[in-house]
Amino acid sequence: MIIPINPKSKIPMYEQIYQYLKEEIKSGRLLVHTKLPGTRTLATDLMISRNTVESAYSQLVSEGYVESHPKSGYYVTEIGTLVHMTKQEKEDKPNKKTSDFVPDYDFSPFSVDISGFPFSTWRKLSNQCMNDMNRNIFLLGDPQGDLLLREEISNYLHEFRGVNCEAQRILIGAGADYLLQLLSKILGKKCIVAMEDPVYLRAYQILKGNGYQIIPIPVDKEGIQVEQLYSVPIDFVYVTPSHQYPLGVVMPIKRRRELLLWAEEKEGRYIIEDDHDSEFRYKGKPIPSLQGIDTAERVVYLGTFSRAIAPAIRVGYMVLPKQLYNIYIKNYSYYASTVSRIDQAILCEFIRGGYFERHVNKMRKRYKAKHDTMLRELKIFGNQVQVTGEYAGLYLVAEFFCGLTEQELIQKAAQKKIQLYGLARHYIDKEKQKLEQKRAIILLGFANLTEIQITKGIQQLFICLSKQTEKKNQ
Amino acid sequence: MIIPINPKSKIPMYEQIYQYLKEEIKSGRLLVHTKLPGTRTLATDLMISRNTVESAYSQLVSEGYVESHPKSGYYVTEIGTLVHMTKQEKEDKPNKKTSDFVPDYDFSPFSVDISGFPFSTWRKLSNQCMNDMNRNIFLLGDPQGDLLLREEISNYLHEFRGVNCEAQRILIGAGADYLLQLLSKILGKKCIVAMEDPVYLRAYQILKGNGYQIIPIPVDKEGIQVEQLYSVPIDFVYVTPSHQYPLGVVMPIKRRRELLLWAEEKEGRYIIEDDHDSEFRYKGKPIPSLQGIDTAERVVYLGTFSRAIAPAIRVGYMVLPKQLYNIYIKNYSYYASTVSRIDQAILCEFIRGGYFERHVNKMRKRYKAKHDTMLRELKIFGNQVQVTGEYAGLYLVAEFFCGLTEQELIQKAAQKKIQLYGLARHYIDKEKQKLEQKRAIILLGFANLTEIQITKGIQQLFICLSKQTEKKNQ
Repeated sequence: MIIPINPKSKIPMYEQIYQYLKEEIKSGRLLVHTKLPGTRTLATDLMISRNTVESAYSQLVSEGYVESHPKSGYYVTEIGTLVHMTKQEKEDKPNKKTSDFVPDYDFSPFSVDISGFPFSTWRKLSNQCMNDMNRNIFLLGDPQGDLLLREEISNYLHEFRGVNCEAQRILIGAGADYLLQLLSKILGKKCIVAMEDPVYLRAYQILKGNGYQIIPIPVDKEGIQVEQLYSVPIDFVYVTPSHQYPLGVVMPIKRRRELLLWAEEKEGRYIIEDDHDSEFRYKGKPIPSLQGIDTAERVVYLGTFSRAIAPAIRVGYMVLPKQLYNIYIKNYSYYASTVSRIDQAILCEFIRGGYFERHVNKMRKRYKAKHDTMLRELKIFGNQVQVTGEYAGLYLVAEFFCGLTEQELIQKAAQKKIQLYGLARHYIDKEKQKLEQKRAIILLGFANLTEIQITKGIQQLFICLSKQTEKKNQ
Repeated sequence: MIIPINPKSKIPMYEQIYQYLKEEIKSGRLLVHTKLPGTRTLATDLMISRNTVESAYSQLVSEGYVESHPKSGYYVTEIGTLVHMTKQEKEDKPNKKTSDFVPDYDFSPFSVDISGFPFSTWRKLSNQCMNDMNRNIFLLGDPQGDLLLREEISNYLHEFRGVNCEAQRILIGAGADYLLQLLSKILGKKCIVAMEDPVYLRAYQILKGNGYQIIPIPVDKEGIQVEQLYSVPIDFVYVTPSHQYPLGVVMPIKRRRELLLWAEEKEGRYIIEDDHDSEFRYKGKPIPSLQGIDTAERVVYLGTFSRAIAPAIRVGYMVLPKQLYNIYIKNYSYYASTVSRIDQAILCEFIRGGYFERHVNKMRKRYKAKHDTMLRELKIFGNQVQVTGEYAGLYLVAEFFCGLTEQELIQKAAQKKIQLYGLARHYIDKEKQKLEQKRAIILLGFANLTEIQITKGIQQLFICLSKQTEKKNQ
């Protein structure tokens, strides 16, 4: 047998032999049951060491191309149908939104201002956490999240959000999406779920994706209409009581009590409270959580650090009521934590050291200035614009009265390189969505724009819509 | 109205007023529909600014305790049934294994050696990634994971594991557990799943927890017995072909072909290849992946950096075949990424800079030394111990012939502070598990022990079992 080997190649000689024989076997040129030359013979023929040949044969045996028959030698195995390994063809990525439109003013309600992120602090804490004394940090931690971090979160939630919880009941996970999936497992499969309509679309997609039947419940000026929960056998309801997403209304205490009463009336009913941007309230104190007044263990409290710190920090938390916590421990506590322990340690120090509170205060001030600027600038529209959902969150809800539908308004603005985001698509109920599309309600995000950009952007929008009004009046 | 306020308190005065009135309303001492004193009157009475009173009232209005009637004043709202907020009682954590047993020698097959973790490199890369030029890293990234990291993983998998994939088909997620959950969604609900028996318990729990019907398929010296897949209408099969967990056998090429043929025979059949510790092979080259010879788009390839770098690095990857990738894009691509972008960036640089390859090579050498030590030390048992699954992974499979059952052996060793881990519990089939419990097959992990500890530990075990044999012989 002649095997072409190149002693000067970077590829070890045993590997050259192995590769050559493997190809010969795969192509069928070396027939099944063929006896390979003995290791001594081949070594002599190729003028190489016998060890090299043995390594090559041994690898072929490991992978099953060759069988070793003691005291007889090496034989080509029957390896079954031959398939040819081909490199996959490059494919076009399936329709991902690739728009060339780069707006001058992007009023996205989903963006955050990361220019205020305390880089040097984060880096310092990161280095502290990764010192050599602390190697255990690289081992797998508690599936619920590290206890120290859970204690910090527990203290923070108690002090700032009025949440009533022990660290033990907190689950840390890689973002709200992941936690909602885990919660769906805990709550079980055959559930009927009520959601606010209009709704936080991401949560809607996830709960719907988990196979739940979703019942949309209208939202009025006090939040979800609790009396409508009684018309269908709802198992749990997903709400954003401190700042309804997207309408921005706050659920007053009376409605909260009614909602809790609904849950208490029947075993197995739960309320998911998503406290998505509660840190940012610009008038008075933050609205305390619904969870804090729940004495019957019916509220699941959900939050993340995406808005308060940065979206890239994939850390969310969920506070479970007793019965659900017990189900988690019994059935799902084997899921490994989804958050790197290094990140957990950095975040823990960030809260413990008071950096988080300072950061939130700084950002609240910064966002308030942007919020105030936008509110002030919108005044040029006079009674052509009506603003709601103000004094909290990272966007305003503005209805435009200029004879345009939502889509017309968005398209008109886009021509002037202003990107707007409509409310209508947040409706689950398709009939309502159609009605809303005829109006022109916009979620005007201000987080990632400077005050100058906000001023200029709103003025641009005014000019662009004034022309519209002029045209109409002609 | 007399409101006790303390101007020297750290609590702002408006908050003192707000808290006091809120408690009065909640307790019912202030009756529903009571008119509150006007802001001017109360300000004069308390000798404070009117703004302070207005802030307090405004907060009460926001939270719904008080209503503002224009030109009339502020009235206590009807807030519904009164419930009293009580701090949850501390509970005992439900039965978590809390054992006081601290072994001298812990032969855990699940541990890794983190003493070799390249701390300073990781810290350096971490600082590099977090420089001020790079603030976008704090925004939310691609749901599939950052493209740069996926490209690095794609190159690595192609070069070192023979995996045939474009970066586009890779999904990055927070560990194999999370990815298996996501995959379950993509594959759909009503599936019948075949698993190797004995099995990787964690994967078994997750797939079972997702509601699948699990069919255990016996493993022989060539891995899962493919012919048995035909007896039940299986939808997909989970395998560890490069190094079966826990038995350590390698699936030869013939069996791989048979497995692929099974999948190709019927639309919708898939193979999940979990390549859990493929980096660590101590004889010859790593066994190439099954995915690399799949030409029919039937293999899902799954891996993580838990063993190769550190368990705390919660980064896993999954390569999807075409049809499953299309389902993912269509139905589940809205799930936000579960991995922090900072971690993704560090890991990307770690691979790109060649650190990962060097680290794996270093650890392979280190683990090989431990593996060789253990294999050598086990020789003192003579024919009382038979080893299988050697030359790969982080543990050996050792059957002990000393007249003890698995549990007896584990207990006997525990008395000498040696912690052993049995094979039997990895069986899904309860009958087989019972049979295996009568034998004494142990998964002897060596990763987190030093060579000296391995030597001493095995010698201790020998002494402890020799006494057993002596007793028996008396």
